[in-house]
Amino acid sequence: MNDKETLMDDIVNLCKRRGFIFPSSEIYGGYNGFFDYGPLGVELKNNIKKAWWQDMVHRRDDIVGLDSTIIHHPMTWKASGHVDNFTDPLVDCRESKMRYRADQLFFAPVVVAGEKIGYVSVLEDGDMQEKAEEAARDLKRRLAKQGELAPIVLKDYTEAKPDEYALIPSPATGKPGSLTPPRAFNMMFQTYVGALRDETAIAYLRPETAQGIFINYKNIIDTGRVKIPFGIAQIGKAFRNEINPRNFIFRSREFEQMEIEYFISPKADWKKIHQEWIEYCMNWFDGIGIPKSRLSLYQHPKEKLAHYSKGTTDIMFEYPFGVQELQGIAARGNFDLTQHQTVSGKSMEYFDDREPNKDDRKYIPHVIEPSFGVDRIVLAVLTAAYAEEEVEGEKRVVLRLHPRLAPYKAAVFPLVKNKPELVERAENLYRRLKRRWNVFYDAAGAIGRRYRRQDEIGTPFGITVDFDTLEKDGKVTLRDRDSLQQIRITEDELVAYLSEKIDG
Amino acid sequence: MNDKETLMDDIVNLCKRRGFIFPSSEIYGGYNGFFDYGPLGVELKNNIKKAWWQDMVHRRDDIVGLDSTIIHHPMTWKASGHVDNFTDPLVDCRESKMRYRADQLFFAPVVVAGEKIGYVSVLEDGDMQEKAEEAARDLKRRLAKQGELAPIVLKDYTEAKPDEYALIPSPATGKPGSLTPPRAFNMMFQTYVGALRDETAIAYLRPETAQGIFINYKNIIDTGRVKIPFGIAQIGKAFRNEINPRNFIFRSREFEQMEIEYFISPKADWKKIHQEWIEYCMNWFDGIGIPKSRLSLYQHPKEKLAHYSKGTTDIMFEYPFGVQELQGIAARGNFDLTQHQTVSGKSMEYFDDREPNKDDRKYIPHVIEPSFGVDRIVLAVLTAAYAEEEVEGEKRVVLRLHPRLAPYKAAVFPLVKNKPELVERAENLYRRLKRRWNVFYDAAGAIGRRYRRQDEIGTPFGITVDFDTLEKDGKVTLRDRDSLQQIRITEDELVAYLSEKIDG
Repeated sequence: MNDKETLMDDIVNLCKRRGFIFPSSEIYGGYNGFFDYGPLGVELKNNIKKAWWQDMVHRRDDIVGLDSTIIHHPMTWKASGHVDNFTDPLVDCRESKMRYRADQLFFAPVVVAGEKIGYVSVLEDGDMQEKAEEAARDLKRRLAKQGELAPIVLKDYTEAKPDEYALIPSPATGKPGSLTPPRAFNMMFQTYVGALRDETAIAYLRPETAQGIFINYKNIIDTGRVKIPFGIAQIGKAFRNEINPRNFIFRSREFEQMEIEYFISPKADWKKIHQEWIEYCMNWFDGIGIPKSRLSLYQHPKEKLAHYSKGTTDIMFEYPFGVQELQGIAARGNFDLTQHQTVSGKSMEYFDDREPNKDDRKYIPHVIEPSFGVDRIVLAVLTAAYAEEEVEGEKRVVLRLHPRLAPYKAAVFPLVKNKPELVERAENLYRRLKRRWNVFYDAAGAIGRRYRRQDEIGTPFGITVDFDTLEKDGKVTLRDRDSLQQIRITEDELVAYLSEKIDG
Repeated sequence: MNDKETLMDDIVNLCKRRGFIFPSSEIYGGYNGFFDYGPLGVELKNNIKKAWWQDMVHRRDDIVGLDSTIIHHPMTWKASGHVDNFTDPLVDCRESKMRYRADQLFFAPVVVAGEKIGYVSVLEDGDMQEKAEEAARDLKRRLAKQGELAPIVLKDYTEAKPDEYALIPSPATGKPGSLTPPRAFNMMFQTYVGALRDETAIAYLRPETAQGIFINYKNIIDTGRVKIPFGIAQIGKAFRNEINPRNFIFRSREFEQMEIEYFISPKADWKKIHQEWIEYCMNWFDGIGIPKSRLSLYQHPKEKLAHYSKGTTDIMFEYPFGVQELQGIAARGNFDLTQHQTVSGKSMEYFDDREPNKDDRKYIPHVIEPSFGVDRIVLAVLTAAYAEEEVEGEKRVVLRLHPRLAPYKAAVFPLVKNKPELVERAENLYRRLKRRWNVFYDAAGAIGRRYRRQDEIGTPFGITVDFDTLEKDGKVTLRDRDSLQQIRITEDELVAYLSEKIDG
């Protein structure tokens, strides 16, 4: 099995080496917080989006799709509260010009024999407690202080008192005096629409796809035949000007979301529906190859919820860098629709002809919001699928991707490449399968090596055309990536088998 | 048949009424140049993208996919020439604060009996010549001039001489003196990445997806097993700050592109490959329901080509507002890769081990660039599909969408809704089909009315479960949207039939 310490590096390297994910603009030295999906990555990502759309929209009766623009009317973000509140606390180091998120910068007073001798600071990290203690011992030694060092209690920089700002050392220089007080930094990317560059022309790249749903809710109510409870689903890019993008594609500045706003009556049992969504999403992840055993739930504490939120539960995944949010499922009440009604002056009321009590028929619906990050799912899928193991005395790297998600569904191999009838037969099979699925053809090298190249990119099925195919039974060998079992099968049986496994 | 004059309005109205396309941010009064795809529109658009990806990437051996970010390293746009040259000529009216594209603002001197009595101006339009002549007669009358009015010869404002700027009337006010000289206006949307707002932090929203391909070309060469000739395909959003967005989704500020860079040897017969791509694309359009009879070719004249371009041919479509570009296919030489090599300092050379002449094996490949606009295809598909006709004495609106593109592939109807066995049978069939395709279920209203609701949104197949299904033959009625023919068919035959028609 894979060493957990190196797993993240192994995944990043595989992604680069085999063309799943590249750092954006690499020829220009890269661009912090941006990643490009290569030939295999785009297939994996598309398959995740396709599976989600099929399971959330096509196979359900109560959800319809939407594709709103990335740039909306800027009033949208005024109404939603993003212009005023979508901020991270930012702290600058005046000397080094470095910038930190104040809530990721930790500090502590250093107290020796009851006397405060200074401060230490560290950046958020699994080892930050140890690092801070070492820095404290260093400081004690440097100042030649005698006596017992008090325990180091870290707080983040947003909790620093005004008189402490000047005393906390900058992580860049190690010296105090250069850190500014934290200030609110709006994470929305801003641009100008139209030929003017003034206040009236300011627009934003959406930091979430959800608001595009709320501002289209009225049009969909008016033109579709949707009845509450129902949902609107959307997949698309979102942008956040993160101060500190990190963990590969986990937190980047340009990313993709898949969001649903599920509209319910204010009288509905929201806790029950919220719970049903949590279970539905857990099962969905499990079904695409992120096993439940690696998932957990985190319920946001009441005191940390926004005033309008009734409850938020995150589905957490065991990433190589720690347990982190894979998906959030929020019960948002009717905050957003109410805000848009107030700011736009357009009624967001729904008329519920199925509500028995006449007085309760007109209302602004509440929502449950399952919000998925596509890139986080890609990373979770890769993490769950990645394995190194010994097969027949040789090490192999294998991605155990679900057939629905695998970039190539199958690879077709002629056993040898210098036998024309055999090659022709293999090519014909390849063409037949390729009409329907993304299939790879490989005639070069030893068959074991060809299998391993496919294992590494997660191709679930290897199909070999050999001499028996031509001379004996007309059957091909189907090799399963995970069980390594090989069976002989006719071409028609093969198509039916693949159809069942892939299109499930 | 539909009156051509009203066709555009009919399409826009249908799009709004049935939830294909909404003006973006409509509750905030709309946002010029932005459109949202509603529940049916997103399906149509996704189906176009899916068909394209399947036909261009999955079913070919020589093209791989890519998904690069919308925001690249800004050097990309310096290298490509967009920072310096991606401009439109803009003219302001100082009095009204209106802005015009100088090449869409036309003017002419008014000459009566050999004397220049003033100028007229008009905005680009099918009737602009008549409008200008009327304005000229007006002016003559107003100034009480006698004699013959010389023919009005319109030129666009980019051709105005400096001493004419003050004499040409503003289209907003009708009076001269307020128009500025034309200035170059860069159409890229600009933003800042990171916490700074200075020169070093400027970034751009991509105005085309093509450059994302060029900057990833090296990574793909190094990690894939591609051999020249081969292509890289990408689908994604692009943004242009159009001064004058118009014609519905034809020219908007946020739009979606599907582009291929097809890399070839400098020694290859580029004219032949260019021609093959033109034919391939024409056939592709024809295959998805944009008939060749409505397409034409426009070859850009040599003198209007960029210096690096060897030739560009546009595929033109007969839109309701005129014959306009649906797709461009450019032979761009190796301009882009050479620029990126120069600016980045990274070699873009390819080593061609299949080239017989040793001295010619190392080269920077040339490209053929088929560039598709998704929204323009949506509009072309809708235009080609829209029809009004009389059926059994009643008018029906029908969208003759290709089954591959139709939002709903089929609709299932129980003949009546008050017979439980019949409803159950219909629902079961609906569930079975829905596992595989996007299918609609409708039990409400007269059957004829239900058919017509589906005709209007392009559902190709109507399936009715009736009393005979239960009591006699177990078969259902399959009605064809276009031929209106109805046949009786078993459920298994139905699945096979739909599979052939839809998944083609």
